[in-house]
Amino acid sequence: MDSATAIGVGGGFAVIIGANVMEGGNPSSLIQIPALVLVFGATLCVTLAGGTLADAKNAVAALKKAFTGKVTPAADVVPTIVGLADKARREGLLALEDAVKDIDDELLVKGVSLAIDGNDPEEVRTILESEVIAKRRADKQAAKFFSDAGAYAPTIGIIGTVMGLVHVLENLARPEELGHLIAAAFLATLWGVMSANAMWLPIGNRLKRLSELDVARMEVVIEGVSAIQSGANPRVVRHRLVSLLPAEEQSALAEAA
Amino acid sequence: MDSATAIGVGGGFAVIIGANVMEGGNPSSLIQIPALVLVFGATLCVTLAGGTLADAKNAVAALKKAFTGKVTPAADVVPTIVGLADKARREGLLALEDAVKDIDDELLVKGVSLAIDGNDPEEVRTILESEVIAKRRADKQAAKFFSDAGAYAPTIGIIGTVMGLVHVLENLARPEELGHLIAAAFLATLWGVMSANAMWLPIGNRLKRLSELDVARMEVVIEGVSAIQSGANPRVVRHRLVSLLPAEEQSALAEAA
Amino acid sequence: MDSATAIGVGGGFAVIIGANVMEGGNPSSLIQIPALVLVFGATLCVTLAGGTLADAKNAVAALKKAFTGKVTPAADVVPTIVGLADKARREGLLALEDAVKDIDDELLVKGVSLAIDGNDPEEVRTILESEVIAKRRADKQAAKFFSDAGAYAPTIGIIGTVMGLVHVLENLARPEELGHLIAAAFLATLWGVMSANAMWLPIGNRLKRLSELDVARMEVVIEGVSAIQSGANPRVVRHRLVSLLPAEEQSALAEAA
Amino acid sequence: MDSATAIGVGGGFAVIIGANVMEGGNPSSLIQIPALVLVFGATLCVTLAGGTLADAKNAVAALKKAFTGKVTPAADVVPTIVGLADKARREGLLALEDAVKDIDDELLVKGVSLAIDGNDPEEVRTILESEVIAKRRADKQAAKFFSDAGAYAPTIGIIGTVMGLVHVLENLARPEELGHLIAAAFLATLWGVMSANAMWLPIGNRLKRLSELDVARMEVVIEGVSAIQSGANPRVVRHRLVSLLPAEEQSALAEAA
Amino acid sequence: MDSATAIGVGGGFAVIIGANVMEGGNPSSLIQIPALVLVFGATLCVTLAGGTLADAKNAVAALKKAFTGKVTPAADVVPTIVGLADKARREGLLALEDAVKDIDDELLVKGVSLAIDGNDPEEVRTILESEVIAKRRADKQAAKFFSDAGAYAPTIGIIGTVMGLVHVLENLARPEELGHLIAAAFLATLWGVMSANAMWLPIGNRLKRLSELDVARMEVVIEGVSAIQSGANPRVVRHRLVSLLPAEEQSALAEAA
Repeated sequence: MDSATAIGVGGGFAVIIGANVMEGGNPSSLIQIPALVLVFGATLCVTLAGGTLADAKNAVAALKKAFTGKVTPAADVVPTIVGLADKARREGLLALEDAVKDIDDELLVKGVSLAIDGNDPEEVRTILESEVIAKRRADKQAAKFFSDAGAYAPTIGIIGTVMGLVHVLENLARPEELGHLIAAAFLATLWGVMSANAMWLPIGNRLKRLSELDVARMEVVIEGVSAIQSGANPRVVRHRLVSLLPAEEQSALAEAA
Repeated sequence: MDSATAIGVGGGFAVIIGANVMEGGNPSSLIQIPALVLVFGATLCVTLAGGTLADAKNAVAALKKAFTGKVTPAADVVPTIVGLADKARREGLLALEDAVKDIDDELLVKGVSLAIDGNDPEEVRTILESEVIAKRRADKQAAKFFSDAGAYAPTIGIIGTVMGLVHVLENLARPEELGHLIAAAFLATLWGVMSANAMWLPIGNRLKRLSELDVARMEVVIEGVSAIQSGANPRVVRHRLVSLLPAEEQSALAEAA
Repeated sequence: MDSATAIGVGGGFAVIIGANVMEGGNPSSLIQIPALVLVFGATLCVTLAGGTLADAKNAVAALKKAFTGKVTPAADVVPTIVGLADKARREGLLALEDAVKDIDDELLVKGVSLAIDGNDPEEVRTILESEVIAKRRADKQAAKFFSDAGAYAPTIGIIGTVMGLVHVLENLARPEELGHLIAAAFLATLWGVMSANAMWLPIGNRLKRLSELDVARMEVVIEGVSAIQSGANPRVVRHRLVSLLPAEEQSALAEAA
Repeated sequence: MDSATAIGVGGGFAVIIGANVMEGGNPSSLIQIPALVLVFGATLCVTLAGGTLADAKNAVAALKKAFTGKVTPAADVVPTIVGLADKARREGLLALEDAVKDIDDELLVKGVSLAIDGNDPEEVRTILESEVIAKRRADKQAAKFFSDAGAYAPTIGIIGTVMGLVHVLENLARPEELGHLIAAAFLATLWGVMSANAMWLPIGNRLKRLSELDVARMEVVIEGVSAIQSGANPRVVRHRLVSLLPAEEQSALAEAA
Repeated sequence: MDSATAIGVGGGFAVIIGANVMEGGNPSSLIQIPALVLVFGATLCVTLAGGTLADAKNAVAALKKAFTGKVTPAADVVPTIVGLADKARREGLLALEDAVKDIDDELLVKGVSLAIDGNDPEEVRTILESEVIAKRRADKQAAKFFSDAGAYAPTIGIIGTVMGLVHVLENLARPEELGHLIAAAFLATLWGVMSANAMWLPIGNRLKRLSELDVARMEVVIEGVSAIQSGANPRVVRHRLVSLLPAEEQSALAEAA
């Protein structure tokens, strides 16, 4: 589990509250039920309205992944693939049938199984690439849910503030309450901006990033399956796959080897 | 019918009004005829001005679709195609003539009919892909109408507020009415931001999303027609089409099988 | 002539003025010469500065087209092309020499003439596609002039308002004139936002849309010329071209047939 | 020399100052040294920080080009190329050696020289296209310098204004100076917005546009060199090149012919 | 080392502080611990939350590169490659084994080594291009960290200011402190905007630019390795590589030759 999002979102709210305390404010005065209901309720409603019920369901599942999802570097799959390529070259493709059972990576299992079943290399690649495209689209939609929420939240907050100010302006008769009422009106904007920047947008960015990392690993797998199927030299396979990795994973892999 | 948009837009307005009531406001004070005429009237006018009369007509049709349109998952069409592929392989392409009559999916009917008529596979694919491109363009334009309205509405609201403030500033002689007049001026901004974020933008997003889902299903159909025409093994056809689906539809399909 | 832009821009200003009157304002108080000179003058200057003199000249020509331009649906050209394909198939390409004289569509005339002159089909397609690329670039530049003006105008308005407020703040000695002076300062922002949203941006959008529609028709023509030159069956030509049209033009064409 | 930028930027500032005078303002009160130092100094510093020293040097050179650069329409190069094609067809490629000496267009000279030297047509095209790509990248970077400056300037201005207001708020003891101090604080925003919209952004747009026009001419040259080298019929060459031009240059060329 | 970023960021802050002093402000009054903690702390937290821990680690490494990184013009590698091409043509590819040891450019060493090892030219190119793609992605992510921080910082600042104003509005009882409290509230916005525009955004832009320059040099290397391997004439190699350079590097190279 990569804890960047848990640390970042938690730390973000902690810093904001801490700064409020340092300035002599009372964080509990920031809690105002109507503003919270408005900002969170209306943001979720209008974000939901921009997609389908299934999209919203997937977004909830993605939320969990954003906080607790494991990030497997693409480099981790390279030794496994090189091992399979070695075995396939020495003992033939069919010998991979048992080896595949111990592998975690779903796409690698699917690709090798398709190869064992005797499918055409071009066909195997097309099927695996379709998986990547379908995954990328699904991930994009899940990330979009949170990016959209991050775009709506501040303006929903402004709606709350303007409604509050209208309320204030029509009740100017009680000047001693003005300060409190205006402060309350601004809390909607505060929560709109805060929820967008400390929650929705970072979560959306995180999901986009996790998707990129997953796709990068899947691309390594696709090249690997293709190399295994063509019976390439394991040393060449390694070279080819390593060149697909970012520099820091290349050196980590070199050290591990 | 996927009710996400009906729930989302309805719920969004309900939450906004509810929050206003919770804060002690009177929702009826938000209703101000000149502001509503300005924000909705001028937004629709300038949005209309950016396209053609036909675009506006199509946008009205799309509005209905956004709220009541049925969302057919791409997975639903897979068993039908696999069935056709099976029949075509056993009895020949011409045997599909009757089977086609029971199919709902227009593109599938068109593709299979073109195949039965003996058209070249490459030609059939080109025609079906042209349909997808034409549909995508038409959908994009319909969604753009609402995205544009969502971009114009807040600034139209600001026009109303500035006009109102100018009116206030030239009538400073009656200070007892100032609060009410300023409040009234801000209602135009309120309605501009609210109509954009709780209606126009979500509807635009929804139409873009429905178009994506339709296009994804059409892509499955195109691959399916191509596979049927080439007389591929139904098991391979299924494999190929399933790899085009997002992960959660893949498993739903696996459970159903 | 498609009157969407004339109706939209005219209606937009009418609604804004109408709302001002409904609120008890006096539209004539919105007319302030220095603000109008600033907003329109400076916007046109800085937009001009971002291109060439020829671009500005073309933008003026495009302005007329935006308001009065005829929108010919791509579907209208299909029967003509099918007729030509039929004639060419029966009587040979040279027989089109007379038929071409009655055709309005410039690109169709050019394409068929090139085909009659015996040019290679690949060469004809390349030339026609170059025309489309050149047209698309020219259209994009014309639309950009108005989009740019729409981006500059509100900020130019803000310049006017800030200059006005600075003027006010340095003349606080006459409090009885403050309201009027501040109101005057805001008129620059009002005109900046209003000219952008009710004129420049809709006109820019309209020109982009007209260009899209023209290009879509040109693509139908290119496919048509290609089909005529290859001596394709008129029924197949029709099928091919119809698949390039949006759904509602397809059905309109089907009804007309 | 195309004077659009000189006229536009000069006219923009003239209109702004003129409007200030018309409103009864004193333009000299807009000149405030600290605001000018802040807005221009900090904008240039942070823009510089986003690139390399060489980028900044190139941007200065591009600035001169934006104001005084000559705009040569792509059409101007067509007759020259057709002439060369004619000569090459009649007398052979080597006969162009003398003709090339009188040509201004660097890329045309380079392309024809490469052809005379007996290089492979594919190789010549690759080299000429590499030139276009390299030029487009360099132009993009130069334009980006000014676009970036245009994006930074208003926010730098806001920094100045907020610093000024902080200064004001901590010196509320002298109310008679408040108006003047607040006015001074707003001058930083004024200069930030004004420098961005009347200088940086138009210059950035102009450089992008000049680059587009240069690239369009270079594309005509590349097609022309290719046609010369293949010994194409001059009439066909002319047809081919003319189709690459925008409509108004096509007709200008037709009139000139 | 290219000092543009060190000069630009340092100069930017110096100019801002200098302007503050010129206006009679006291820069030390801009230092307010809670605002600084909020703006820098929360910005870093939420930026971290949008990626992985490894991304944040890479961003720190990139920060150093942004300030002290050496910019090697692509032109510098041309003479080396031409030299290698010359040697390879005269003495054969294997003769490059020693020459490679003196070369700094990692990609050139890798490419030539792969060529010496007898790998297929197509395979060598694919591996080198994979390196470029992997590097571009890693660079993009590092730059994105700072661009994201630059997008979050101003809104985090606004959160601080709204919290401060809420605090002020609920403590209107002590009017003599109002000015100071409001000033303090605005410092959060000041630091948010200042950190974004004078640090985060320029650093993000710088990293994007360094990446572009690195990639441009890598593309020259790839073409060079390909030419060496194909045994091309050194003069032609030089011509080919020079055409990939921007104009000012071409002339610098010509002067040096």
